[in-house]
Amino acid sequence: MKHEDRIVVGVIMGSKSDYETMRAATELLDRFQVPYEAQIVSAHRTPERLYDYAKTARERGLQVIIAGAGGAAHLPGMVASMTTIPVIGVPIQSKALQGLDSLLSIVQMPAGVPVATVAIGVAGAKNAALLTLSILGLGNEAWMDQLQDFRQEQTNSVLQDALPTIFHT
Amino acid sequence: MKHEDRIVVGVIMGSKSDYETMRAATELLDRFQVPYEAQIVSAHRTPERLYDYAKTARERGLQVIIAGAGGAAHLPGMVASMTTIPVIGVPIQSKALQGLDSLLSIVQMPAGVPVATVAIGVAGAKNAALLTLSILGLGNEAWMDQLQDFRQEQTNSVLQDALPTIFHT
Amino acid sequence: MKHEDRIVVGVIMGSKSDYETMRAATELLDRFQVPYEAQIVSAHRTPERLYDYAKTARERGLQVIIAGAGGAAHLPGMVASMTTIPVIGVPIQSKALQGLDSLLSIVQMPAGVPVATVAIGVAGAKNAALLTLSILGLGNEAWMDQLQDFRQEQTNSVLQDALPTIFHT
Amino acid sequence: MKHEDRIVVGVIMGSKSDYETMRAATELLDRFQVPYEAQIVSAHRTPERLYDYAKTARERGLQVIIAGAGGAAHLPGMVASMTTIPVIGVPIQSKALQGLDSLLSIVQMPAGVPVATVAIGVAGAKNAALLTLSILGLGNEAWMDQLQDFRQEQTNSVLQDALPTIFHT
Amino acid sequence: MKHEDRIVVGVIMGSKSDYETMRAATELLDRFQVPYEAQIVSAHRTPERLYDYAKTARERGLQVIIAGAGGAAHLPGMVASMTTIPVIGVPIQSKALQGLDSLLSIVQMPAGVPVATVAIGVAGAKNAALLTLSILGLGNEAWMDQLQDFRQEQTNSVLQDALPTIFHT
Amino acid sequence: MKHEDRIVVGVIMGSKSDYETMRAATELLDRFQVPYEAQIVSAHRTPERLYDYAKTARERGLQVIIAGAGGAAHLPGMVASMTTIPVIGVPIQSKALQGLDSLLSIVQMPAGVPVATVAIGVAGAKNAALLTLSILGLGNEAWMDQLQDFRQEQTNSVLQDALPTIFHT
Amino acid sequence: MKHEDRIVVGVIMGSKSDYETMRAATELLDRFQVPYEAQIVSAHRTPERLYDYAKTARERGLQVIIAGAGGAAHLPGMVASMTTIPVIGVPIQSKALQGLDSLLSIVQMPAGVPVATVAIGVAGAKNAALLTLSILGLGNEAWMDQLQDFRQEQTNSVLQDALPTIFHT
Amino acid sequence: MKHEDRIVVGVIMGSKSDYETMRAATELLDRFQVPYEAQIVSAHRTPERLYDYAKTARERGLQVIIAGAGGAAHLPGMVASMTTIPVIGVPIQSKALQGLDSLLSIVQMPAGVPVATVAIGVAGAKNAALLTLSILGLGNEAWMDQLQDFRQEQTNSVLQDALPTIFHT
Repeated sequence: MKHEDRIVVGVIMGSKSDYETMRAATELLDRFQVPYEAQIVSAHRTPERLYDYAKTARERGLQVIIAGAGGAAHLPGMVASMTTIPVIGVPIQSKALQGLDSLLSIVQMPAGVPVATVAIGVAGAKNAALLTLSILGLGNEAWMDQLQDFRQEQTNSVLQDALPTIFHT
Repeated sequence: MKHEDRIVVGVIMGSKSDYETMRAATELLDRFQVPYEAQIVSAHRTPERLYDYAKTARERGLQVIIAGAGGAAHLPGMVASMTTIPVIGVPIQSKALQGLDSLLSIVQMPAGVPVATVAIGVAGAKNAALLTLSILGLGNEAWMDQLQDFRQEQTNSVLQDALPTIFHT
Repeated sequence: MKHEDRIVVGVIMGSKSDYETMRAATELLDRFQVPYEAQIVSAHRTPERLYDYAKTARERGLQVIIAGAGGAAHLPGMVASMTTIPVIGVPIQSKALQGLDSLLSIVQMPAGVPVATVAIGVAGAKNAALLTLSILGLGNEAWMDQLQDFRQEQTNSVLQDALPTIFHT
Repeated sequence: MKHEDRIVVGVIMGSKSDYETMRAATELLDRFQVPYEAQIVSAHRTPERLYDYAKTARERGLQVIIAGAGGAAHLPGMVASMTTIPVIGVPIQSKALQGLDSLLSIVQMPAGVPVATVAIGVAGAKNAALLTLSILGLGNEAWMDQLQDFRQEQTNSVLQDALPTIFHT
Repeated sequence: MKHEDRIVVGVIMGSKSDYETMRAATELLDRFQVPYEAQIVSAHRTPERLYDYAKTARERGLQVIIAGAGGAAHLPGMVASMTTIPVIGVPIQSKALQGLDSLLSIVQMPAGVPVATVAIGVAGAKNAALLTLSILGLGNEAWMDQLQDFRQEQTNSVLQDALPTIFHT
Repeated sequence: MKHEDRIVVGVIMGSKSDYETMRAATELLDRFQVPYEAQIVSAHRTPERLYDYAKTARERGLQVIIAGAGGAAHLPGMVASMTTIPVIGVPIQSKALQGLDSLLSIVQMPAGVPVATVAIGVAGAKNAALLTLSILGLGNEAWMDQLQDFRQEQTNSVLQDALPTIFHT
Repeated sequence: MKHEDRIVVGVIMGSKSDYETMRAATELLDRFQVPYEAQIVSAHRTPERLYDYAKTARERGLQVIIAGAGGAAHLPGMVASMTTIPVIGVPIQSKALQGLDSLLSIVQMPAGVPVATVAIGVAGAKNAALLTLSILGLGNEAWMDQLQDFRQEQTNSVLQDALPTIFHT
Repeated sequence: MKHEDRIVVGVIMGSKSDYETMRAATELLDRFQVPYEAQIVSAHRTPERLYDYAKTARERGLQVIIAGAGGAAHLPGMVASMTTIPVIGVPIQSKALQGLDSLLSIVQMPAGVPVATVAIGVAGAKNAALLTLSILGLGNEAWMDQLQDFRQEQTNSVLQDALPTIFHT
């Protein structure tokens, strides 16, 4: 079998409603057969679960954590503060401020503790999975090749999608 | 003696440089003789201190926590997630985005865990101390009277500050 | 009986339509059996009612005022200017600017007169009630215990809500 | 004598430091010999002065009020809520948010109570005086003529200021 | 008859679709029996009409111009540049940027040429009419009284609208 | 025949969904009988097509390129970096940030490589076509005359659209 | 002589102080020996000059107009409304809002009248000149070649500027 | 020797002036003895270098690319479009818009091509290096341990930095 069996990616999100966005990440991980787990970990409502999750992540074998959160989105940054493995933050589109609050809360981390931030919403969730594959692919040729294939298909698809070249003379 | 002896207010901030702003809070607490402690607690660089601080706050007798932070300002919200006493958040003016990031990271808390947010920068730090007095004053007439006096002096000061009434005829 | 009988919280809002948002606050106060009153007090359309409301709040026994307003949201700040009890401001989501105007009008108070500002919209209204309980709980163990229970239930609910841990191997 | 003798314009501002900006208004009123008074009236620190000022404005003969304020700038809107004469709001440039907060707090008034808002800072203060003259000029040909002259001089000044027309051939 | 017969207010707007917003202004002018005219004058698509409109406004007897525009909203400022009578600008809520562009384009006029700017959208349109009445009322007691009555009714309406005072004991 | 036969305008866009906006450009080019081609060229998903497109544009006879893109909208700027013919950028209205991200990504080009940026969305797409005609019209009187006619019709249409002048006396 | 003798580019700006920014445009035009004129034309303070300038631009032989303006920056759009030649708008960095107001006032033109907008400030001014050369170069090989050379030099300069490749082993 | 000898990290930036910010990244890489190269690669002024750089990155052995850029910051996204190794984007603080433009241009990538975005300015540059170490550490225990040590020192430093606990009784 070409992939590892143990879970290497943790996908967490601040609330059940964030799953509408975050499933775009898990669906891509499924497609690439990356062993992952997905859970709700709320920075504000389950701070101890957050603490445990982050503290044990590395020893449990996780290599990348994808964390989605909206509004005062503290989940990605707090997880990052308690582990040394890469944490990818997905800003969920919030109701009033459209995710600008989520984005700034996630990306503007102080020097010392980075969060790898991606775009607001579904595009960001997809890209979190692809970035994960980039990172895992450094130690696993098969995944890097899969990513390469995905990107090539994506390119091909755009090339075929193209509007007919229109001549007006 | 008219005030309690035990420390009732905790003033915390994300980094040493935040003290330039936060001293405006501690100076007012000094003036009102409110017993407080002031410490650096960084959400991202000392997450365990944050957990300990928040979890023991109530049992240690704290009644209000004032937390200042800038950028992806997670400190106030994370403290609030682990205690039931009121937490006041002071958005520190950040370099690039002038504190808009700090403000949104602090104020846009999800339903369930409030942070009492005040203005960006020094005005906010002062107001955090005054809001603290408002809250403590509910259980302590002396402090409420002191606050009343402070407000009256403030009013008098503005009334005297007034530009001369100018008549142009 | 474990709670006081007199009204201790005033919930006010700038217009009837704000009640859609503010009922999230009153429903929580109901749940916690906090005696409150709810009224429309418009800073701009009923300035004298505002004046009377704020000036008599303390003597009428109010201990906390929750004020919701949108756009050029002057209600919370003006009430705060005329009383020393804590005032919590809820920025209502406005039509054009999504509540960014409401938020800045409420939170950016000058040094001297604080408003404890919470998030834009319904989350903020809920949190205004919870913050109220935090404050009242300082002088009333029963309420603080209730808040503690509420928070614990909330945590439990998230823990149960959790997505099934998914293993892909 | 071509102008009225009684004071017809009230210039108010939230704090002494606002005078740096607001003097641009009073200097123009001086130039046009418009009888005015200038005072500090703080919405938040002297709310009773604000109430008295606004409520007596019309009977005292004021025809226009110019009100400058920064941050959560409630002064212009609150004055407007208690008088029917025109109120012009000048957003003072604030420290953190550069006057965007002042602008939104002043201009986003609810239906029912208008504030005639001008630009942030000194340009706004000057324009507040010119707008005042426009309004007063409707009932006083001399002032309208003065305004016309001022505008003509301004135009002439720009026409002379012009960079030399440069020919590069 | 208590009002003048000649048209004293010009209501203009940049396009037909702006009338959805601007009718809130004309309906109030109707109610107050203020003689007005309403036309489409597009700064960008009919610049000569704009020029003629502004240049002849005063001599045609107009005393106030209300101008609504969206996006790069140049209409109010350009009219103001060619007349000395007061010009009130109404920022129309734009599609992409929700009227923030309209607001800044209207309010941020340079020193020398003011536009009296009101809130974005329908609230602003209503307030433009009320501000007009404030201005016209300075020279016409009947209108000032009408405005006073309108404001009183508005206050009464809010006082009656009030939520029932709720007691929870 | 009054126009050239070879394709002189390239219309490109980052994805199929952008065509909803960009067709407003191609429809105007059709109307003016400007020979153009329309294709999907994604900066991020087909970077080599972008490279080839831009590098060969001038030699293939293109005189203007219209490029629409949303979000991190790199297409217009990257094309501009590899050709010397004028590139017009159309910011597509994005989901979360309403096109503010698209606008800033397109317009804030560094010194050395300009992109002629137009408004967000459909208005921008139309204007991209009209700006193209302006540019092409410099070397082709017929097109400049057509543009002149279009603008005249547009003016006439607004003049006829006008709301009836309403007299209320 | 390789270039035309008559003035083909008009550079205008709203005030003398804008020249600090706009000289970046004229210096590049000088370098490329593009015959231009530079003048102050204020939309708000010299509206008649604006009308004359725009209306006669084409007949006077201008082929491109570069217009710089700040704040409520109406100059570029109003010129564009009265001519069919391409108008390039340069948003001047404003004091309070850093040019965001200038940018939105210039770029958000309604369908029908485009302004080719470039970046805020000096980078934008330079790019306005380069875009001008792009446009003029379509009808003048010499200029297009010059632009090509300029771009090549720019590329070479960056290639030489490069930080030394650092190897750390 | 505990680290690899070949260059594994590429640090690129859009212009020489970006090095003021980006040296914060290279200094940390030096400290951790991560073999890297640092170069200027301008998306807009050296697009071919960008293409070559990105296309050969993986085969040259690079495992992570750190790309800093300001304004319409296309460098990180364009590099990411042509390689599958992880690309970290650092938004440089821009002059007019303080890096908000840089941030949005980098982070708002479309689905399919991620950029791991960090904070605006120096904090972001430092975090780019730390995130790099996180990623490389997944395949190299020594680096992960170094990162762990760095984080521990950082924590210790904050713990010692702490303001003296102040007791006021």
